[in-house]
Amino acid sequence: MKAKIHVTLKRGVLDPQGKAIGSALDHLGFEGVEEVRQGKYIEIDLRERDPTRAREQVDAMCRQLLANLVIEDYSVELEG
Amino acid sequence: MKAKIHVTLKRGVLDPQGKAIGSALDHLGFEGVEEVRQGKYIEIDLRERDPTRAREQVDAMCRQLLANLVIEDYSVELEG
Repeated sequence: MKAKIHVTLKRGVLDPQGKAIGSALDHLGFEGVEEVRQGKYIEIDLRERDPTRAREQVDAMCRQLLANLVIEDYSVELEG
Repeated sequence: MKAKIHVTLKRGVLDPQGKAIGSALDHLGFEGVEEVRQGKYIEIDLRERDPTRAREQVDAMCRQLLANLVIEDYSVELEG
């Protein structure tokens, strides 16, 4: 199965990368940009074929390595 | 409108971040991880309300700043 994982900063956590992108877009002349937030997108190909077990495995990966749950949220979609 | 943008490395382009995540998962004891690819996920809140104009604007942002089209692909979803 393929797991598609989004890791994003929680609301209220300062996002300097997002702010930098917003400023750069502004300098390039793009108008009407209100807020920019940057996160991570991770795709993992798993040998596991059972969706329930795959989700448990990916949840554990997110909690242990991929996301810092103090400041980040994550979401997982499974495919295939 | 909100634009949700994924920027991912093209197939065949070496992904050292993805490889590092794969090794780390392996060291943590996760089995059955075949391939890991890491990309960027960017959310932009736009004042623009017209979907066609918003898409043109975001396409231009991706080409000029957010994606390096030599090695990266991007995809855009609009909401709201």
